[in-house]
Amino acid sequence: MNPTEGETDALAEPVPGALGERILLGHGSGGRLTADLFQGLFLPAFRSPQLEVAADQALVELGGATVAVTTDSFVVSPLFFPGGDIGRLAVCGTVNDLAVGGATPLYLTVGFILEEGLPVADLRRIVASMAEAAREAGVTIVAGDTKVVERGKGDGVFVNTTGVGLVPPGLRLSPRAIRPGDCILVSGPVGDHGVTIMALRSGIGVEAGIRSDTAPLSGLVRALLDAVPGAVRCMRDPTRGGLATTLVELARAAGLCFQVEEAAIPVREEVRALCEMLGIDPLYVANEGKLVAIVDGAAADAALAALRSHPLGREAQIIGRVASGPPGAVHLRTVVGGTRPLDLLEGEQLPRIC
Amino acid sequence: MNPTEGETDALAEPVPGALGERILLGHGSGGRLTADLFQGLFLPAFRSPQLEVAADQALVELGGATVAVTTDSFVVSPLFFPGGDIGRLAVCGTVNDLAVGGATPLYLTVGFILEEGLPVADLRRIVASMAEAAREAGVTIVAGDTKVVERGKGDGVFVNTTGVGLVPPGLRLSPRAIRPGDCILVSGPVGDHGVTIMALRSGIGVEAGIRSDTAPLSGLVRALLDAVPGAVRCMRDPTRGGLATTLVELARAAGLCFQVEEAAIPVREEVRALCEMLGIDPLYVANEGKLVAIVDGAAADAALAALRSHPLGREAQIIGRVASGPPGAVHLRTVVGGTRPLDLLEGEQLPRIC
Repeated sequence: MNPTEGETDALAEPVPGALGERILLGHGSGGRLTADLFQGLFLPAFRSPQLEVAADQALVELGGATVAVTTDSFVVSPLFFPGGDIGRLAVCGTVNDLAVGGATPLYLTVGFILEEGLPVADLRRIVASMAEAAREAGVTIVAGDTKVVERGKGDGVFVNTTGVGLVPPGLRLSPRAIRPGDCILVSGPVGDHGVTIMALRSGIGVEAGIRSDTAPLSGLVRALLDAVPGAVRCMRDPTRGGLATTLVELARAAGLCFQVEEAAIPVREEVRALCEMLGIDPLYVANEGKLVAIVDGAAADAALAALRSHPLGREAQIIGRVASGPPGAVHLRTVVGGTRPLDLLEGEQLPRIC
Repeated sequence: MNPTEGETDALAEPVPGALGERILLGHGSGGRLTADLFQGLFLPAFRSPQLEVAADQALVELGGATVAVTTDSFVVSPLFFPGGDIGRLAVCGTVNDLAVGGATPLYLTVGFILEEGLPVADLRRIVASMAEAAREAGVTIVAGDTKVVERGKGDGVFVNTTGVGLVPPGLRLSPRAIRPGDCILVSGPVGDHGVTIMALRSGIGVEAGIRSDTAPLSGLVRALLDAVPGAVRCMRDPTRGGLATTLVELARAAGLCFQVEEAAIPVREEVRALCEMLGIDPLYVANEGKLVAIVDGAAADAALAALRSHPLGREAQIIGRVASGPPGAVHLRTVVGGTRPLDLLEGEQLPRIC
C-alpha cells in the first residue's frame, strides 16, 4: 500500500472501473494495477492519514517519539538465488523501506507461512540468512509467528517482515520537499535483482556476474544524511516497478518534472544483455539494494562523493535533475538523443520477483 | 514465536531430535511441534531478549516510550465463517495479543498474499470487515502491502497483521508475577471459534448458535485493569492450542502449579455436543475473543465483576487457583471427581484454524 515500495501510488490517477472481477498477477506488480487496487479498494476502506501519505513507511507518534512502521510480504520464487534468498530479501526489503524514509531501522517482526513438506534444511538456511542480514542492518528480530498450510496451498515459504524504526527529531523527508534544480542520484547499477530472478525463472541460467543486489541500505543512507545534512529532500528504493516507476511516482508526488539522462543511468553489461534477450527494459526491473535520492542541486557533488565512499554506493551516479516542464512527467533523454516519457509499469513484468 | 498466541513456549522443554526433515502441519498447531520449531530453529538463529521472553508481544524502548509489537499471519480456511472472516480474525488476533500484554493497541499494518483469480468481491468483503474490526478495537491501519501468487500457489487470501501499542508507564504483566493463591479467570465459554471452523470443514454444517467468538479484547482488558489496578498478574488469549495449552504455558512460565475445576469452565452446550461428535476436547480448541487472566486472589471477585460488566465478559468465571504442587503442572479436577494433568496440544487438531 506504500507506493515506492512499488505497491501503489496514492497520487496516481485511478483508472475508473479498472478493478475487474478477479485478482490478476498484475495486481501485485507494483505498477498500474496495484495502484488501482490501492485507490479503488484499500484506501477507501482503511483511510488513515498515514495511508493517504502513502510513503515507504508510515510515521506514527508514540509517547513523544516519531516512529516509522512498514510491512512487506515476500513470495519470491525461486526461494534461493545468486546474491540472496527469500530470507535476506525479507530483512533487507523492510529495513530499506525504513531507511529511505530517514528512520533508523531498529526492530523487525517475522511471519512465516510454510507449506507442508518444506525441507527443514531449507527453512534453516533461510532463517540463518535472515539472522545474518539483520546483523548487517543492525536490527533485532523481536517477535514472530509461524503458520503451516497444506501441500499445494502455498509455495514453500512466504515471509512477512514488519519493521519499526526511530525517526531523528526534525528530519522530514518528503516528495513535497523536492524543488526545481534538485539533482537525482542513484546509488549503483539498476536491474540486478529482477534480472537474476528472471534469468532463473526463464531457465536461461545465471551467467557469471549476474546476482541479486539484495542488501540493507541503512548504512549507505546514514552516510548520505550525515554528509549533506538538510540537503536530502527524499529517498526511495526502486523495487517492484524499477527505477522508472519510482521516478514517475516521485515526480507525481512532487508535482514537478524530472529530466533524466539515460546515458547516466548505470546498468551492468550482463544485465543489459539479458534484458535485451528477455525483451524487457532494465529501468522497469526490480532492485533490492539501490537507493534513489533527490538532493539540493548545490549539495549534489558532496552527496555523490558520500555515496561513492560507501561499499554499496561505489557506482553511484547523478542521473538527472528536477526541471521545469509538465508536473508529474519524467522525461528520459535517450542515448540516441531523443526524449521519451516514462510511465508506471503496466501489467506484470514477472510475478513474484520479491 | 510468542507462546501464548499458541505459537510456542520458550519454557517448554524441547524434545531432542524432534525437528524432522520436513515441515508438518503440526508445526503450525501452536502445540508441541511449534514449540520444537521455535526452540530448535528460530530462537537459536534470531536470539534476542524479546524472543527469549516469548510473550504475546515484544516490548521495545523507542525514544523513551515502552512500545509493544506483535505479528501474526492468518491462513484460516474457509475465509468466511459464522461470526467472522479472515479479515476480522486478522485484526482481532493481533489487537488481542497487544491487549493481553496490557498495551493499548494503536496501529496495525496489513500484508495480503492473494491468489490469482480471487474474486475482487471477496477481497472487498474481507477488507470491509477489517476496517470495521479496526474501528471496534480503536486501532488505525497505517501501512500495507499486497502480493499476488499464481493460481494453485496460495489459497485465496493470506493476511499478516502486525500491531504496535503503547504500554502504560509502570505496567508490567508477566507470568513471573504469578503467586500461589492467585485466581484464574476466563472471560466466557471456550471453544467457539475452533468448533465453528471444524464444523464447517468437516461438512457437519453449523447449527444455529454456533459461531466464532472473534472479537477485539482491548475494551474488556481496559475494564479489568481499571477495576483492579495492580492486581492483574498476567493475561493471555487462548487461541491455537486452546485454554489447556495456555494454562500449561503459564504454569510453566510461572514455575507454579495450577488447579482448575472442569465444572467451572464455561463451554456452550452446542459446542460441547459438537466436540463429542468430532471426538475432541473443547479445552484444546481455539478461541479468538476470550481472555484468561491471573489475578491476586483478594481481588478475584472484583475482577470477575469487572469482566461480567463488559459485553464480552458476561459469562466470565473463576475457573481455578494457583496452588502448591509440582511446578509447571496444571491439574484439572474433572466433573466426575478425578484429577487429570493437562499438557500442551500434541500434533495438530485441525490445520488452519486461524
